[in-house]
Amino acid sequence: MAVKTQVSTEIDLDRPGKQQGYLRVPYSHNLAGWAELQIPITVIANGSGPTLLAIGGTHGDEFEGPVALMKLARALQPEEVQGRVIIIPALNLPAVRAGTRLSPVDGMNMNRAFPGEYNGSVTSMIAHYMTHVLMPLADIVMDIHSGGRSMVFYPCATLHRVPDDAQYARMLAAARIWGTRYVFIYTDVAGEGLLPVQAERMGKLVVTTEMGGGGECNPGVLRVAERGIRNIMIQQGLLSGQIEVPPYEVTLVAASDPADYVAAPADGVYESLFEVGEEVRAGQMVGRVHPVERCDRPPEPVMARTTGILIGRRAIGVTSQGDVVATIARVVEG
Amino acid sequence: MAVKTQVSTEIDLDRPGKQQGYLRVPYSHNLAGWAELQIPITVIANGSGPTLLAIGGTHGDEFEGPVALMKLARALQPEEVQGRVIIIPALNLPAVRAGTRLSPVDGMNMNRAFPGEYNGSVTSMIAHYMTHVLMPLADIVMDIHSGGRSMVFYPCATLHRVPDDAQYARMLAAARIWGTRYVFIYTDVAGEGLLPVQAERMGKLVVTTEMGGGGECNPGVLRVAERGIRNIMIQQGLLSGQIEVPPYEVTLVAASDPADYVAAPADGVYESLFEVGEEVRAGQMVGRVHPVERCDRPPEPVMARTTGILIGRRAIGVTSQGDVVATIARVVEG
Amino acid sequence: MAVKTQVSTEIDLDRPGKQQGYLRVPYSHNLAGWAELQIPITVIANGSGPTLLAIGGTHGDEFEGPVALMKLARALQPEEVQGRVIIIPALNLPAVRAGTRLSPVDGMNMNRAFPGEYNGSVTSMIAHYMTHVLMPLADIVMDIHSGGRSMVFYPCATLHRVPDDAQYARMLAAARIWGTRYVFIYTDVAGEGLLPVQAERMGKLVVTTEMGGGGECNPGVLRVAERGIRNIMIQQGLLSGQIEVPPYEVTLVAASDPADYVAAPADGVYESLFEVGEEVRAGQMVGRVHPVERCDRPPEPVMARTTGILIGRRAIGVTSQGDVVATIARVVEG
Amino acid sequence: MAVKTQVSTEIDLDRPGKQQGYLRVPYSHNLAGWAELQIPITVIANGSGPTLLAIGGTHGDEFEGPVALMKLARALQPEEVQGRVIIIPALNLPAVRAGTRLSPVDGMNMNRAFPGEYNGSVTSMIAHYMTHVLMPLADIVMDIHSGGRSMVFYPCATLHRVPDDAQYARMLAAARIWGTRYVFIYTDVAGEGLLPVQAERMGKLVVTTEMGGGGECNPGVLRVAERGIRNIMIQQGLLSGQIEVPPYEVTLVAASDPADYVAAPADGVYESLFEVGEEVRAGQMVGRVHPVERCDRPPEPVMARTTGILIGRRAIGVTSQGDVVATIARVVEG
Amino acid sequence: MAVKTQVSTEIDLDRPGKQQGYLRVPYSHNLAGWAELQIPITVIANGSGPTLLAIGGTHGDEFEGPVALMKLARALQPEEVQGRVIIIPALNLPAVRAGTRLSPVDGMNMNRAFPGEYNGSVTSMIAHYMTHVLMPLADIVMDIHSGGRSMVFYPCATLHRVPDDAQYARMLAAARIWGTRYVFIYTDVAGEGLLPVQAERMGKLVVTTEMGGGGECNPGVLRVAERGIRNIMIQQGLLSGQIEVPPYEVTLVAASDPADYVAAPADGVYESLFEVGEEVRAGQMVGRVHPVERCDRPPEPVMARTTGILIGRRAIGVTSQGDVVATIARVVEG
Amino acid sequence: MAVKTQVSTEIDLDRPGKQQGYLRVPYSHNLAGWAELQIPITVIANGSGPTLLAIGGTHGDEFEGPVALMKLARALQPEEVQGRVIIIPALNLPAVRAGTRLSPVDGMNMNRAFPGEYNGSVTSMIAHYMTHVLMPLADIVMDIHSGGRSMVFYPCATLHRVPDDAQYARMLAAARIWGTRYVFIYTDVAGEGLLPVQAERMGKLVVTTEMGGGGECNPGVLRVAERGIRNIMIQQGLLSGQIEVPPYEVTLVAASDPADYVAAPADGVYESLFEVGEEVRAGQMVGRVHPVERCDRPPEPVMARTTGILIGRRAIGVTSQGDVVATIARVVEG
Repeated sequence: MAVKTQVSTEIDLDRPGKQQGYLRVPYSHNLAGWAELQIPITVIANGSGPTLLAIGGTHGDEFEGPVALMKLARALQPEEVQGRVIIIPALNLPAVRAGTRLSPVDGMNMNRAFPGEYNGSVTSMIAHYMTHVLMPLADIVMDIHSGGRSMVFYPCATLHRVPDDAQYARMLAAARIWGTRYVFIYTDVAGEGLLPVQAERMGKLVVTTEMGGGGECNPGVLRVAERGIRNIMIQQGLLSGQIEVPPYEVTLVAASDPADYVAAPADGVYESLFEVGEEVRAGQMVGRVHPVERCDRPPEPVMARTTGILIGRRAIGVTSQGDVVATIARVVEG
Repeated sequence: MAVKTQVSTEIDLDRPGKQQGYLRVPYSHNLAGWAELQIPITVIANGSGPTLLAIGGTHGDEFEGPVALMKLARALQPEEVQGRVIIIPALNLPAVRAGTRLSPVDGMNMNRAFPGEYNGSVTSMIAHYMTHVLMPLADIVMDIHSGGRSMVFYPCATLHRVPDDAQYARMLAAARIWGTRYVFIYTDVAGEGLLPVQAERMGKLVVTTEMGGGGECNPGVLRVAERGIRNIMIQQGLLSGQIEVPPYEVTLVAASDPADYVAAPADGVYESLFEVGEEVRAGQMVGRVHPVERCDRPPEPVMARTTGILIGRRAIGVTSQGDVVATIARVVEG
Repeated sequence: MAVKTQVSTEIDLDRPGKQQGYLRVPYSHNLAGWAELQIPITVIANGSGPTLLAIGGTHGDEFEGPVALMKLARALQPEEVQGRVIIIPALNLPAVRAGTRLSPVDGMNMNRAFPGEYNGSVTSMIAHYMTHVLMPLADIVMDIHSGGRSMVFYPCATLHRVPDDAQYARMLAAARIWGTRYVFIYTDVAGEGLLPVQAERMGKLVVTTEMGGGGECNPGVLRVAERGIRNIMIQQGLLSGQIEVPPYEVTLVAASDPADYVAAPADGVYESLFEVGEEVRAGQMVGRVHPVERCDRPPEPVMARTTGILIGRRAIGVTSQGDVVATIARVVEG
Repeated sequence: MAVKTQVSTEIDLDRPGKQQGYLRVPYSHNLAGWAELQIPITVIANGSGPTLLAIGGTHGDEFEGPVALMKLARALQPEEVQGRVIIIPALNLPAVRAGTRLSPVDGMNMNRAFPGEYNGSVTSMIAHYMTHVLMPLADIVMDIHSGGRSMVFYPCATLHRVPDDAQYARMLAAARIWGTRYVFIYTDVAGEGLLPVQAERMGKLVVTTEMGGGGECNPGVLRVAERGIRNIMIQQGLLSGQIEVPPYEVTLVAASDPADYVAAPADGVYESLFEVGEEVRAGQMVGRVHPVERCDRPPEPVMARTTGILIGRRAIGVTSQGDVVATIARVVEG
Repeated sequence: MAVKTQVSTEIDLDRPGKQQGYLRVPYSHNLAGWAELQIPITVIANGSGPTLLAIGGTHGDEFEGPVALMKLARALQPEEVQGRVIIIPALNLPAVRAGTRLSPVDGMNMNRAFPGEYNGSVTSMIAHYMTHVLMPLADIVMDIHSGGRSMVFYPCATLHRVPDDAQYARMLAAARIWGTRYVFIYTDVAGEGLLPVQAERMGKLVVTTEMGGGGECNPGVLRVAERGIRNIMIQQGLLSGQIEVPPYEVTLVAASDPADYVAAPADGVYESLFEVGEEVRAGQMVGRVHPVERCDRPPEPVMARTTGILIGRRAIGVTSQGDVVATIARVVEG
Repeated sequence: MAVKTQVSTEIDLDRPGKQQGYLRVPYSHNLAGWAELQIPITVIANGSGPTLLAIGGTHGDEFEGPVALMKLARALQPEEVQGRVIIIPALNLPAVRAGTRLSPVDGMNMNRAFPGEYNGSVTSMIAHYMTHVLMPLADIVMDIHSGGRSMVFYPCATLHRVPDDAQYARMLAAARIWGTRYVFIYTDVAGEGLLPVQAERMGKLVVTTEMGGGGECNPGVLRVAERGIRNIMIQQGLLSGQIEVPPYEVTLVAASDPADYVAAPADGVYESLFEVGEEVRAGQMVGRVHPVERCDRPPEPVMARTTGILIGRRAIGVTSQGDVVATIARVVEG
């Protein structure tokens, strides 16, 4: 590997068969002068076919992806595969072990750390390795997200409207067989440096999701995730078998207007007046922020500025001014 | 008020009409030498009738109770009431504002702090005030809980099997009209000093709940809470109107065997194989703890030791050895 | 010393002459299994006369007392004294070294820790030693306070209106020669367990102060403190010399009504409309709480409920609901 | 706006009239995956005239600036203005709400963060927006500082001796009508990246202040700040009316010698022997550092190395080796 | 078990054979509302004979005891034993997992928590269970300590000079065959509530040790510990086999004078001039405290006040005033 | 000094004689708006000869270097020296005062911070100053390390196998007279940015060590350090006198294979089966990781993959997956 990186692995990424090992990230700290973070990686390769890079745990409070991918990493055998599957169930391992969105080691958001730095902190070194070593090997980059502790989503496959029409068409086709009622085209409203954006820029077929939330590992959402991963692998020719899709029609929705992302106007406890999946109309009150220390005062109304389906809402009651409490998406043509 | 307490209030608890004010708890700390915590309290009294003490926010990560009670405190008018309603939407106010189960001020669990201490830390002083000032005034003590950040419950009214049969019958009758499919008789498995136990010992009609969880303020659960509060008030003669109960039959279930509370055997990410409300059988695997740092190893199986309905499960994926991950309840006769 | 205590000292409290040493408080923690806190103490005794116990640093963010007493402890010689002077410049030494009101070691407020516990945490053990060993030896207990980080006071000697008239008369006489324009009779509004209350209950002549604040070590306030200490020592016959009093007449003021202590009605930045020493009238606005995150909204007015002199106000701008922002005292007859 | 920035606002900076809104800074963290910091901004424009960018809360423990500017933002009407006033009362909003010099969000000092980074942490992104969007629009940049928690200043308008003589003359003329006895020319002794230095380099008329301190919101200092802001606006033609200057003559002083900034030689409690505004002479003891844990030892003397007026001193008693405890300025010709 | 305790176990303490399980301590906190700490316990019983209660991990930074006892718990079979062996390798399990002396859960020192409280925090509940349930069953209580992070000891068996001569004789006989050159009689200098003192008061044969330190798990010290445990078991008739004692003669030493425990007179970096096991004389310098921030100043000398063998010294360089840096013991008659 | 740096000093690096002062690093924070870190530096120069830059405290938990160099800085007189000695006993002063490997001020590892940044955080500014100001002046750069809190080393002089053969020969010759049985050639396994690597790249004669550990200031190791410093100074002509070498032969060992650095495969308590200095063979078990929360389970074996001398092992018992627990070096030809 000619790329300059401080991350190493004992895995031979080019060898057929099944290997399980670690991405080893140098890490020197108060309790261990010489140490490494060990991020589990499983590679299963057989014959010719595309390479899938399947990632979970980019955020440490989203658990269905890690569980689905750990189960896959244990169960999948080379003879079942045509191509190569690279599985990293917990990319931000310290965050997953802490159950927090951000890494407790360096405070970084892995999904804002791309393309990463050669000699940055550990999260940044991992992002750099992904960008320069693993992503170039991949045809499909799958990054499985849930809503995390702060948000609840109507389960959906997600994607950006990338400028390359052919790439977009392939991404949309993949999202459509993930197995959720909605496919959701989202816009980045909270910063740059996202993993999927990095992969998109490299021309990959990028598959992402937002499913459930509340920091849970939800049994129903987990089933959707496992089915989705399998469907994509079959669609892309990595696995043989029958794509299993639920009986409902898939609807494509988009939240492309900044006004679709409704922020709380004050601190307090947020009461959502709608459940995800329900329709809201511009000008309608979608929720209220209650000043819990002043019960003699009325709550702050939170108004929808656009019309559409409530695709996501704040999960936890306690809310700060500026937190996105409602995301509204409109049906669009594919 | 002859009781010795350090908590004061400007509210006259005996006056008819509607008053909104604070329980004022002395609090001297680094950023304010002379200060008080102000816990909002609303009292609405009219004519003769029972006294309801309605409490939310005993745990700071359970939001449906606080929201339902803030809305009630704002909306309810004296002329609608026969008797007295004392509403404290956020008993552990600092915890509710932080969104944590325990108080960030003194690290205490309000629901383990009873009967409280006259000169304890703030949580303990509040508990002491409840025990010695407010609970003695109450006929009905309602303490609305949700699952909180760590647990998800099938929404249920809950109660202890108190030794006094008459008290138990009244508590059960109240629980039955709360409006959930299950009424759940639970046992204390994580310590003493609970608010409802204190009220039970004082002979009160105690109404408690466990609904939803994941730290959410869930719109559906909130609707159940608001309906339940109203139903109890009508049943107890505080409010006139029609009790609204869902069409399904209420089932009484109990988790009276310590084996009903299944603890995680190891640290890791917990995958529940069942959703709450599903039936599990003794000897069946209810879940698995995945060692996320060792994907080459099998997960730890978590086995049910009893047969019944999964009434609660762990919400958040990341789990420590000893955390209760599954609670199994059996149908019992009322 | 027959009293059971875990605190020890190498000082012989009965020996004439000057001794400097430590109160040694057992303290076992992560960085030192076997250790002691060493609280400096100086004892200067000569001939017959009363015993003065002079204390600073009860709160760690009030610096004039510690500096005045360190200077006295270094300078004072036995031959100057008739009686005994026991000086503890920094009673809550860990708090003084951290500059915080509360002890960073156990989170305790030394001025809420009395009478203390034999086997409590370190703050409580020190309080217990004061109560059971040093206070019984004292005729005069002097506890020098400033406003601390959170409050600013018009410099004043302070006292409680103790029930024993003779004790009160002696305390008032001492307060009157401290050398401040006001002598302030205060009420405890933020909890129990105060050092001066303990000393009062033991019948001591108790001298206390509230001077300046903002966490400063203010040169002017320091001069007042040094002069006051000297005046009291001369008045009580411990020192010979001339009492130095400023030319202005001393006024006795009291804040005996709970309404004199005005709490902030909301979180925000507090703007005091008056400076300490100015007169305010009931119904007048004394300040405003500005919601700094919502400049489009008006501030919360803070109203005086009583008429008098603003004897203290909040120092730091940022304020929480319930913090006392204004203390109003009325002129009373001595 | 063609500048590349991640900060957005709903305010149209070119529109006449009065607008109140937010600078919206993307912020993704453990409690809110999708969120923004909302920094209040008010723009009031009318007719032709210069643009004033008025900033408070660059440090979060300096409160007079934020209060004066919040009051201005609420009160000022377009018809009173000739030109444009852009008001940001709390530039480092999270720091102001915490009452700390540095941001609690990213630990950064806003006044060392300039020119800022496009994709840095939130403090750095705000600095970048100021540098690239708002400062270019401004003729006058006013950054109102107080001493903050750690320092006390004799109230003064401050400025750097910028190399451009014309710019300096304009800055000096503005400082002279701010309304303080001293105008203070200071040197940067604690790092680079200051907001006013950035504005100076862009050729702006920069107005800064150091007033009071101790973390207070001082009523007297607030009055000076409000008068100063008004004076500058009148002088610059933004407002009509009479400049109000106090009766005393303005003196220009400078601390241009590194020796003017006296650092503590040891840890301990600092006693200033002088109050701000007093004269000190080279070789004189300006203060002492008391070793509070060793009352048997003499304090460390702190010596002035230059002669002049004590323009600033350490506010809080507790002091670390290297903290600047005294700043001495000399009278210079304007 | 008639004793009232909140700690439970699935182990039948009276059953012959080998059982491995947990002490289950109720624990409700932010990340798990219903949970228990699980402290591993192994019981191996066979035939008649004494009961040994063998404890490690009372402090969490002393690792040889936990490792020796985990190995014993795994290896020992019922048929090897005459009597009963109760093994708790990590009594303060959260502390051992954190590697800290004190519990990270409640900040408590397990070895200052005795006799414990029924409804205290988790450390106190465990102490209460030991006092009321396990210690009454035991004939021999063995509590294996090392120096921990802060101290280094010449490996020694330790004991108190208990008042009961017969008990003392039995304890001394046991200490003598532990297998260290020194048997050390110590005095408690850092507080009350020690586990061995509780056991002594109950008349038990108490075996304790101080061996090595620096927070290490030292291979040589571990060998001493394993040999010592085996020797005691053979001596007490629990195990058959040959006592293995090293060839050197055992010397009994005592540090019974408070002056034997030498505290640091200042903060800084401690340099011990002697290694443990060396002789020091009263009046001799045993070490120096270096002020690392002032290399131009001489270090503080630390003087021995008694003559004897340096049995323990401070391990870590950085030292606070009051930390015991040297413990000196004198040879005494058994 | 034409180099652009924010660090200043009152020391004239070119002046003969002895000077003691500080490196002054600008540092603005919550408790001191204007402040500097003061890092003690001593310069002793006389006649002509090489320049030695002697550094301790690069890591704050390694104390023998700081103590040896403080003693040298105090004792050494100009007339004893031929050339120049620049001594910085505690390069990462805040870390040394906290006793932690990393700086508590900015969380940085000084030994990963090179070459440093002009306007970075304080650790980075110090590194930048070393790289650009002090290192260019030096012929010999000596950086004295111990094992620190987490590791124990068989005392050894250490070096990298630098590519320049002449430089390597000079470094090896210096290492050989340091006075330890082993000279250890190591490889960087935990990141980049090391101080010695920076000095090597600049062509300096670099002398480094790894001695003892466990966070101790060990008297025996200190003696080795003091002797080693003196030996190097004599060898390099800075000091006259006799090199003192221990009677044993020096052995050169190298750990050049990544497999020589053995990482823990799991979290738990690490038991080393060997002491440093003992021989281990590839395939042999060098240690075990004990799952202290599951005593019913076997420990994880840790296997040596190479054969050689155990030159270092983990000190503290508690261990995380990925921590290097054993370092194995092989005898090599010089």
